[in-house]
Amino acid sequence: ARCGAGEVVYGEGKTAEQVAGIVDALIAAGQRHVLVTRLSAEKFERARELMESDTPLEYHADARIAIAGGMPVQSGNGTIVVACAGTSDLPVAEEAALTAEFLGNRVERVCDVGVAGLHRLLAHADQLARAQVIVAVAGMEGALASVIGGLVSCPVIAVPTSVGYGANLGGLSALLSMLNSCASGVSVVNIDNGFGAGYQASLINHLPGRAPAQTHDARPADAQR
Amino acid sequence: ARCGAGEVVYGEGKTAEQVAGIVDALIAAGQRHVLVTRLSAEKFERARELMESDTPLEYHADARIAIAGGMPVQSGNGTIVVACAGTSDLPVAEEAALTAEFLGNRVERVCDVGVAGLHRLLAHADQLARAQVIVAVAGMEGALASVIGGLVSCPVIAVPTSVGYGANLGGLSALLSMLNSCASGVSVVNIDNGFGAGYQASLINHLPGRAPAQTHDARPADAQR
Amino acid sequence: ARCGAGEVVYGEGKTAEQVAGIVDALIAAGQRHVLVTRLSAEKFERARELMESDTPLEYHADARIAIAGGMPVQSGNGTIVVACAGTSDLPVAEEAALTAEFLGNRVERVCDVGVAGLHRLLAHADQLARAQVIVAVAGMEGALASVIGGLVSCPVIAVPTSVGYGANLGGLSALLSMLNSCASGVSVVNIDNGFGAGYQASLINHLPGRAPAQTHDARPADAQR
Amino acid sequence: ARCGAGEVVYGEGKTAEQVAGIVDALIAAGQRHVLVTRLSAEKFERARELMESDTPLEYHADARIAIAGGMPVQSGNGTIVVACAGTSDLPVAEEAALTAEFLGNRVERVCDVGVAGLHRLLAHADQLARAQVIVAVAGMEGALASVIGGLVSCPVIAVPTSVGYGANLGGLSALLSMLNSCASGVSVVNIDNGFGAGYQASLINHLPGRAPAQTHDARPADAQR
Amino acid sequence: ARCGAGEVVYGEGKTAEQVAGIVDALIAAGQRHVLVTRLSAEKFERARELMESDTPLEYHADARIAIAGGMPVQSGNGTIVVACAGTSDLPVAEEAALTAEFLGNRVERVCDVGVAGLHRLLAHADQLARAQVIVAVAGMEGALASVIGGLVSCPVIAVPTSVGYGANLGGLSALLSMLNSCASGVSVVNIDNGFGAGYQASLINHLPGRAPAQTHDARPADAQR
Amino acid sequence: ARCGAGEVVYGEGKTAEQVAGIVDALIAAGQRHVLVTRLSAEKFERARELMESDTPLEYHADARIAIAGGMPVQSGNGTIVVACAGTSDLPVAEEAALTAEFLGNRVERVCDVGVAGLHRLLAHADQLARAQVIVAVAGMEGALASVIGGLVSCPVIAVPTSVGYGANLGGLSALLSMLNSCASGVSVVNIDNGFGAGYQASLINHLPGRAPAQTHDARPADAQR
Amino acid sequence: ARCGAGEVVYGEGKTAEQVAGIVDALIAAGQRHVLVTRLSAEKFERARELMESDTPLEYHADARIAIAGGMPVQSGNGTIVVACAGTSDLPVAEEAALTAEFLGNRVERVCDVGVAGLHRLLAHADQLARAQVIVAVAGMEGALASVIGGLVSCPVIAVPTSVGYGANLGGLSALLSMLNSCASGVSVVNIDNGFGAGYQASLINHLPGRAPAQTHDARPADAQR
Amino acid sequence: ARCGAGEVVYGEGKTAEQVAGIVDALIAAGQRHVLVTRLSAEKFERARELMESDTPLEYHADARIAIAGGMPVQSGNGTIVVACAGTSDLPVAEEAALTAEFLGNRVERVCDVGVAGLHRLLAHADQLARAQVIVAVAGMEGALASVIGGLVSCPVIAVPTSVGYGANLGGLSALLSMLNSCASGVSVVNIDNGFGAGYQASLINHLPGRAPAQTHDARPADAQR
Ligand SMILES: Nc1ncnc2c1ncn2[C@@H]1O[C@H](COP(=O)(O)O)[C@@H](O)[C@H]1O
Ligand SMILES: Nc1ncnc2c1ncn2[C@@H]1O[C@H](COP(=O)(O)O)[C@@H](O)[C@H]1O
Ligand SMILES: Nc1ncnc2c1ncn2[C@@H]1O[C@H](COP(=O)(O)O)[C@@H](O)[C@H]1O
Ligand SMILES: Nc1ncnc2c1ncn2[C@@H]1O[C@H](COP(=O)(O)O)[C@@H](O)[C@H]1O
Ligand SMILES: [Mg+2]
Ligand SMILES: [Mg+2]
Ligand SMILES: [Mg+2]
Ligand SMILES: [Mg+2]
Ligand SMILES: [Mg+2]
Ligand SMILES: [Mg+2]
Ligand SMILES: [Mg+2]
Ligand SMILES: [Mg+2]
Repeated sequence: ARCGAGEVVYGEGKTAEQVAGIVDALIAAGQRHVLVTRLSAEKFERARELMESDTPLEYHADARIAIAGGMPVQSGNGTIVVACAGTSDLPVAEEAALTAEFLGNRVERVCDVGVAGLHRLLAHADQLARAQVIVAVAGMEGALASVIGGLVSCPVIAVPTSVGYGANLGGLSALLSMLNSCASGVSVVNIDNGFGAGYQASLINHLPGRAPAQTHDARPADAQR
Repeated sequence: ARCGAGEVVYGEGKTAEQVAGIVDALIAAGQRHVLVTRLSAEKFERARELMESDTPLEYHADARIAIAGGMPVQSGNGTIVVACAGTSDLPVAEEAALTAEFLGNRVERVCDVGVAGLHRLLAHADQLARAQVIVAVAGMEGALASVIGGLVSCPVIAVPTSVGYGANLGGLSALLSMLNSCASGVSVVNIDNGFGAGYQASLINHLPGRAPAQTHDARPADAQR
Repeated sequence: ARCGAGEVVYGEGKTAEQVAGIVDALIAAGQRHVLVTRLSAEKFERARELMESDTPLEYHADARIAIAGGMPVQSGNGTIVVACAGTSDLPVAEEAALTAEFLGNRVERVCDVGVAGLHRLLAHADQLARAQVIVAVAGMEGALASVIGGLVSCPVIAVPTSVGYGANLGGLSALLSMLNSCASGVSVVNIDNGFGAGYQASLINHLPGRAPAQTHDARPADAQR
Repeated sequence: ARCGAGEVVYGEGKTAEQVAGIVDALIAAGQRHVLVTRLSAEKFERARELMESDTPLEYHADARIAIAGGMPVQSGNGTIVVACAGTSDLPVAEEAALTAEFLGNRVERVCDVGVAGLHRLLAHADQLARAQVIVAVAGMEGALASVIGGLVSCPVIAVPTSVGYGANLGGLSALLSMLNSCASGVSVVNIDNGFGAGYQASLINHLPGRAPAQTHDARPADAQR
Repeated sequence: ARCGAGEVVYGEGKTAEQVAGIVDALIAAGQRHVLVTRLSAEKFERARELMESDTPLEYHADARIAIAGGMPVQSGNGTIVVACAGTSDLPVAEEAALTAEFLGNRVERVCDVGVAGLHRLLAHADQLARAQVIVAVAGMEGALASVIGGLVSCPVIAVPTSVGYGANLGGLSALLSMLNSCASGVSVVNIDNGFGAGYQASLINHLPGRAPAQTHDARPADAQR
Repeated sequence: ARCGAGEVVYGEGKTAEQVAGIVDALIAAGQRHVLVTRLSAEKFERARELMESDTPLEYHADARIAIAGGMPVQSGNGTIVVACAGTSDLPVAEEAALTAEFLGNRVERVCDVGVAGLHRLLAHADQLARAQVIVAVAGMEGALASVIGGLVSCPVIAVPTSVGYGANLGGLSALLSMLNSCASGVSVVNIDNGFGAGYQASLINHLPGRAPAQTHDARPADAQR
Repeated sequence: ARCGAGEVVYGEGKTAEQVAGIVDALIAAGQRHVLVTRLSAEKFERARELMESDTPLEYHADARIAIAGGMPVQSGNGTIVVACAGTSDLPVAEEAALTAEFLGNRVERVCDVGVAGLHRLLAHADQLARAQVIVAVAGMEGALASVIGGLVSCPVIAVPTSVGYGANLGGLSALLSMLNSCASGVSVVNIDNGFGAGYQASLINHLPGRAPAQTHDARPADAQR
Repeated sequence: ARCGAGEVVYGEGKTAEQVAGIVDALIAAGQRHVLVTRLSAEKFERARELMESDTPLEYHADARIAIAGGMPVQSGNGTIVVACAGTSDLPVAEEAALTAEFLGNRVERVCDVGVAGLHRLLAHADQLARAQVIVAVAGMEGALASVIGGLVSCPVIAVPTSVGYGANLGGLSALLSMLNSCASGVSVVNIDNGFGAGYQASLINHLPGRAPAQTHDARPADAQR
């Protein structure tokens, strides 16, 4: 768990032995919950067998995430909504959602709300409006971030995905699209970085506030329209 | 008017003398309407003075277009809607609209309907649904093309503009976004090429059909949903 | 069939089980024709076995397309010509052609007409001139779109392919070439997006018109030269 | 003030007449504070003369921002720190800081803390640790965002600037650097988009919370190390 | 005349004084013909005044070329044809043509033969077939090189120009297009490098051969089809 | 043998059956020599077995080339030198050399003369000076083309290769380097396109000339220094 | 060992037979130490078996390096520190460290000092300050080079790695970041080129000096702060 | 003098007033030599007038550098050679040379030694071989770094320049070329960053050594060939 993000292990490029060793060590050191991202099903299976600790290790295949010790109690201020354009974007969205849940947040998932089917997105308008933070996950043209950004007045963290082909340039098109969003209140993380979005959403959702969370009317007066 | 596009003159890189000479020659050869694109106000003024023909030359400052001989009678099948995301995209949208009108089409303009203010776009839903062809003009993240493409079932021609800064890369971001549109029925022309979009919209709007234009129900059965 | 494209299923990234399930569901819901794009031969075989419906599922290996329920009756105004530069571009061209046929269009294929062998292309000049819409498919330098665009006065939808190597940049060279076409009346879809071109061509070919399709002389007077 | 961001006017590409007209209209409509970004000194001077309203319009030359009606009362939960790598990044940092102040936030500026002079940055460690949100502004290699992200446990919004030359690619190098930050809790806005960062920081700083802001100890238990 | 190109001076970035001095020095050293490329009209005027030699300096405004001492006698084997897609490409084409003439070649110019107007190009088919070498100059989509390359069996040197806008990327689109040409016998020089093309064409046209130039039938037997 | 390159077959993307069929057909039609490029060893083996013609098919593993009917008699004016920077560039160099030999040229190979070992290159100075045309093949920084271009006064055709890693960008670095060569007389073909370079070199080496090939002194007087 | 770098063999693209042959030949010619880079474990095993010389060949799996004849005696002036941001960067760092040791340098390794965990880096401040040259290895945002460059006053050679995903662009982001470093005294080699950095560090560490190495106070007076 | 580079002021983006103020302050604080880079002639003139200190400020127009207090005494171990490909690269080369001299180094300049005129470069072979460090400055194809790197066994710092046009991409081509150098011992700084190269060369030239500088024979034994 280098880089200050708590007990999170980045599984990419680590062997099953290394993963098992790190998780065991963290638990031995008193850690009760450990998240491993970017872990293939094969490496998960071997790591579970190799682990010496009794803490169970569970696998979330969609997100390629393993969690030891289950989810902690919820400690966030409000709800994080993770919205996702298409079925192919689900793995990244799920990485964001599980990361946020792992960090103590209540998370709602809104799937298959790509901008080409606007009615499906608009059907979730109220749910979006109640969110404390929104993570918007989309590949191809990445327009979801702008459309959601225009609908709501909470912070939106956009995650471009590498979903698409040809001129999608491995996710660069969605990334550029999101960076150029004409909606205010949108910031962006790296392509396919569901973890980073879930992590920052959690930070935002745990900030101390002046008043208990009830409605969104506490937003800056000048921005209300 | 090289390149087969009829009596259209591309003003960029031509002197006022050259423009006046070409327009005079076309009119002398019997042409009654001439369109000059990409003409600065200064070159227009000088070209008008230099022209020998009596046919009046009018300037449309927004689109940087001059038209000799006014607009022809309308000959298209239906209506072309030119929709435009922001104020800064207006010059390109107007280049598309005037080009289409010049080629004999009825054109409706729908402005300031960027996707960050979805209600403004949705307020035009019926108008969009009645269009024969739509030209969607947007810079920054270029999401307008996808959103409109999802709302309607007629062909959409998307025009990315160079409006924006930083990671907009001079319009490339909007271009890539539009090429990766998850909405079907969208094709794309070059950055800032309002002329090209208006021209192709006109071709489409002049195609012969089986039955007179009434409703859109003649669209392919399998695509109706 | 997400994204509003009718009963079309995007096979990429779906399992054979998912494909079979979706096709069965669509047929159970009354759909008589279903198109599945980007489906490998292996997934097709398994999906056909898994399907419960009696509707036969046929595979078009070149285009990697499966069609359930065969082709519908033709309902378009005129003919769509799909022209293709080289043998390697055939899969994309066939994806466009089958998509258009599936959407009720009469389609003519013109193959191996790359611009380096101009006589082969010119031998099809009359056929091209009679088309209602043309889909021009080419990789490498993508010049086919410009050359056809100059020959005809109907709309041309250009499809760049990823065919080539080195400085073809996975199709970007052909894409850029087509976007910069000096011929008017050309618009472009994503690299290898035969489906998108076939779909838009079908939309154009089903638009209502003023008069029955006979000749092309109904095109804008000012563009006739 | 299109795009939902409240009474903010984007001055780029608008004439002094247009700016004066919009500000007058907003004030006439009851608005008491108006922010105009990207306004040159010349356009500001003319707009001030042209304005009919009595509300004073003040210019902040560094940020190229004009504000009518002064700053509103502070309504945020905590403090936003705007940190900036070099002198040349100041205009963008100031755009972020003034935007945040305009939206009702307490803002602290930390300047000239580029990573090549780490001691200057570390001298501000306590100040950074007390922030509710941090906006990190840097050009060239953009490393400031990662270093700050590693030091603190609040959300960091990174703003790449176009400062630099050669391989800085107009800010793309800093942008890519920030998107690839190895520190968790960092998200990114467009190159030179101080406004966007200040705006999102304000949204975050106005979110409702469970408990009054005192210390940072309310952050997720698992992330404390 | 650095870089081995003979008595050729690259005017870009040199002052009028420097140009005059270099030309004077070359003539004093016995040189009878000097070519200066990339010279603005203003610098030419001043350089002519500053020159001390009696050798007249003539300016070719289109090509931004100055020539001292006029053209040498023709010494090449055959004819170099310089073909050019559009009016805006003329400066580059003229740079190529004058360079070749300056190096002792007979040059024929074929203008305005963009591929969108194929009949204009085909009208020159015989002239192209008689060429010893062809220089093909085009911007935008750069398709001219492929089409000419397919028509003839002599070497074609392609010169992409920066003519165009938007996705032409300052000439990169035409460059990539030409590098990916499906026609054999095409090689490419830098964007706008008319000089380089004219120079190489001259080298080719001065190579010793087995038999006097008469027809093109001496080309490799295996390539005749 | 599409694309006008004579009896040359592009093997990439063709099955062994297709290759065998095409070669058989060409031979049946009277062709005595056939070249197949980009053919893997496995496909060659199968194609040889499948062929019905008696003409032997030989494989050149380095160049991934098969030749039916052996090499034709030499018909060129002079010698083509194929120079190559490193061992890894050999396959591309060999593709160029065999193509040129197949087209009736005398070819000399000069290997392992990368610019970092200048003495090895300079040891071949006389051989290079006697060449009629030079093909310069190099990856990584591609400097070989400039250095050779500066040494000789015959045309140089540069072939960038994809050899290298990291910032070589799959050959783009060498390509850009060669296009920007400060040596005159250099033109460039696509990355790894040994065939294209060999083909154009052959065209140049077969051009009719005024006088029999003896020395290089027939080059343009003004370029002699 | 082409390219003047001594008895170093670049293993990439060479067969085990070739590697064994080259190493045998070098040893037969009197060479006592040979370094082979970019050698896979499989090729190493086969090469060791094939080798005829008695000199033992040892494999360093992390760096994919084989060394025959062990390390030479140390001959450098001071110590080279190889610092490395994350675990995934270790192979490249080890390639640099082993290369430098092979060339006769004392090397110290400093691992896992990514800038997001500044305290880990600062814990090595004294060690860094004592270095004669530093090699800084980092992927993702590549900020390590700037931070180290600011801490020390010796030359820093930065090695970007391809570690990361999405917008890391295969290492280009780190490369650009390092080239734009705001710290003076930093130069850069190709992505993943540990060998090149180790080699140049060795050259620097073997330069003759005025006085024996003791402290760093001999650095230029004006740069001391 | 931010960023640790000693008493060096980066003039870009600073007003004449700011420059004068900073220089005055540094001198008042006891500094005897101050270097200002990237200073236009106009700003220099005004700054000199505005300065209150008596220390003379001298301008080096080629390098756009001003120096207060003249050059310090030489303190380096050996000689730094700054080699430069063409006349247009001189400003960058001079920035490197003056920076190195300002930091107490003996500098030799070698100009106009572009690789297309190899004899001019080879004429300096002995001078290059005697250098302690070489700075190689080149635009266009940037091949100079590789060729020099192959000739010498001292460290080479390569500076790509933005000199060129078209596919030089503002210096990126030379940069990529230098990063991919096949010569060992070459590292690279940012495009046009003469200062950075001169600075690092000075650091290298001031390192403590085991033995007084006499010949180059102290280089690693294994690299001698
Ligand atoms: N999927 C991911 N993408 C990016 N960063 C991640 C991801 N998962 C974990 N991380 C970061 O990597 C750190 C752990 O790295 P490590 O010590 O190599 O396991 C965490 O603290 C996170 O900051
Ligand atoms: N704004 C424009 N953008 C792109 N192409 C244009 C534009 N305006 C005119 N054209 C094309 O340029 C042709 C006229 O070019 P020219 O003969 O140079 O005046 C027309 O036939 C159109 O095809
Ligand atoms: N500097 C800026 N950069 C990006 N967006 C801005 C900036 N300033 C204002 N905006 C956005 O532009 C909108 C106003 O646009 P407009 O209606 O054209 O004045 C605001 O609501 C913001 O969302
Ligand atoms: N990992 C590496 N990356 C880049 N260049 C290398 C590497 N290893 C060796 N070299 C260079 O390759 C040369 C040997 O190439 P070769 O003769 O093909 O074995 C050495 O002298 C080095 O200059
Ligand atoms: Mg919003
Ligand atoms: Mg639609
Ligand atoms: Mg046409
Ligand atoms: Mg943090
Ligand atoms: Mg040909
Ligand atoms: Mg030459
Ligand atoms: Mg330093
Ligand atoms: Mg060397």
